[in-house]
Amino acid sequence: MVGIQGRDLMTGSRVRVAFQGEVGAYSEEASLTFFGQDIDTLPYRTLTEVFHAVENEEAEYGLVPIENSIEGSVFQTYDLFLESKLMIWGETVFKVTHCLISKEKDISSVKEVYSHPQALGQCRKFLERLGCTLIASYDTAGSVKILKEKNLPNAAAIASERAAKVYGMNILARNIESDPYNYTRFLAIALNDNERTGNDKTSIIFSTKHVPSALYKALEPFAKRNINLTKIESRPIIGKPWEYNFYLDFEGHRVEERMKEALKELEVNSTFLKVLGSYPKAKELVVQS
Amino acid sequence: MVGIQGRDLMTGSRVRVAFQGEVGAYSEEASLTFFGQDIDTLPYRTLTEVFHAVENEEAEYGLVPIENSIEGSVFQTYDLFLESKLMIWGETVFKVTHCLISKEKDISSVKEVYSHPQALGQCRKFLERLGCTLIASYDTAGSVKILKEKNLPNAAAIASERAAKVYGMNILARNIESDPYNYTRFLAIALNDNERTGNDKTSIIFSTKHVPSALYKALEPFAKRNINLTKIESRPIIGKPWEYNFYLDFEGHRVEERMKEALKELEVNSTFLKVLGSYPKAKELVVQS
Repeated sequence: MVGIQGRDLMTGSRVRVAFQGEVGAYSEEASLTFFGQDIDTLPYRTLTEVFHAVENEEAEYGLVPIENSIEGSVFQTYDLFLESKLMIWGETVFKVTHCLISKEKDISSVKEVYSHPQALGQCRKFLERLGCTLIASYDTAGSVKILKEKNLPNAAAIASERAAKVYGMNILARNIESDPYNYTRFLAIALNDNERTGNDKTSIIFSTKHVPSALYKALEPFAKRNINLTKIESRPIIGKPWEYNFYLDFEGHRVEERMKEALKELEVNSTFLKVLGSYPKAKELVVQS
Repeated sequence: MVGIQGRDLMTGSRVRVAFQGEVGAYSEEASLTFFGQDIDTLPYRTLTEVFHAVENEEAEYGLVPIENSIEGSVFQTYDLFLESKLMIWGETVFKVTHCLISKEKDISSVKEVYSHPQALGQCRKFLERLGCTLIASYDTAGSVKILKEKNLPNAAAIASERAAKVYGMNILARNIESDPYNYTRFLAIALNDNERTGNDKTSIIFSTKHVPSALYKALEPFAKRNINLTKIESRPIIGKPWEYNFYLDFEGHRVEERMKEALKELEVNSTFLKVLGSYPKAKELVVQS
């Protein structure tokens, strides 16, 4: 269990948090905001490796993106949950603020901009005005690292404020994203989910039988118990025509009697049900009845 | 109305279809597959311009992406429908097949790869093996155009087979996408939606009141009439905490009595309802009860 300042309450040692990307990545910034500054953040190349690191206890937690307000759900994370024994321990909603980072001091000397394709896309308007060559890389913070290591002139990268700090570079422009409403919801993953706080959320994946009104029937156990849903999404199952996976989040903890009953009822009408975990709701999230 | 070979049945003239991107874009390829080869395809820079072109009758139809099996929903298209009087006239599901295109004949001479950030991301595994510099551009086919115009040596682009043909370039590799299950669903938009064929679908956007079981109640009118849903997705409304837009597709045409009743009932329980249109179902789509 994480205590104040990111120390493990049981052992007193620093908590290790795995994230995907280079040092300075948005996932690392979100980890430090969520768990506190006094943790050890461990970078991994892929989301799969982050899951493995937590499964193998190289880290107590992982912090993985699950949805972005512009790009939508991160299907890859859902897919990893299907195969993994890990559960959701927490969530945090993180405002993505892109910076233009360079060793140059004057923005007019920037001729090339490096970043992850998604970040380049999210700063499209700014970049069109700038009129530079855009070079795609596999990571936002990784681009800053490349610039630093190669000491590239006339080049800039799009990444987090933290990346500029970590690699000792200049921030030439801030908030360069086209849509200021750019939030990523991250999930903290661990070997167990979290304890009940009274202000919790539960995430599940389920599939329905091929019968009329399947989804409506699946939602009935929640509706009749006045359980609030906060997210629903259907996704066709590859190779199984007529079948869908549903990603559902609802308010409440799975140990509560009402939730237990609802999940039991849902299971009867589902071909598949996996409870990903119960965890305290992020403050910034908006929720609907 | 489109007849055989993409001619307008009323006037006999060639049908004009607006799409987003450069000549050779996947949207253009999908337009030719859907409407037939004997149409005039008109390229526009943005999706907003495609909507305007159809509104201003520069084109009879537009073909716009609505969801991709990897990237998820195209929220921008949904947003444009909210503001537009245009309706959905048809749908088509298009398999995205990425090619590596170059003036070079030997893949080993390729040092730089240009493409749209999403296409670069979708070919990540192939590109990692290739080990080139990746340069992001605003368009897949546009990258091929740049290569052609600048006569760039040691450069390749990722785009459609059609783009290679249009710009007279070589295809060095095909099917280079990491996930072979890469489908984009396109919507044909027009001033009107389509006539009833007996095998139709209807798309709507609605918002629910902030009351318990709002979504369940919203689905009841469909469930009790055994109307099959084929897509559901919740999306938080920016600036309106506790409120969501729902994107819903269901089987049936809005002129059918059963659908009319269901939509009327839904309207009573919604704060907002917009019917985007009814149209013949794409053959390739899989559908669930």
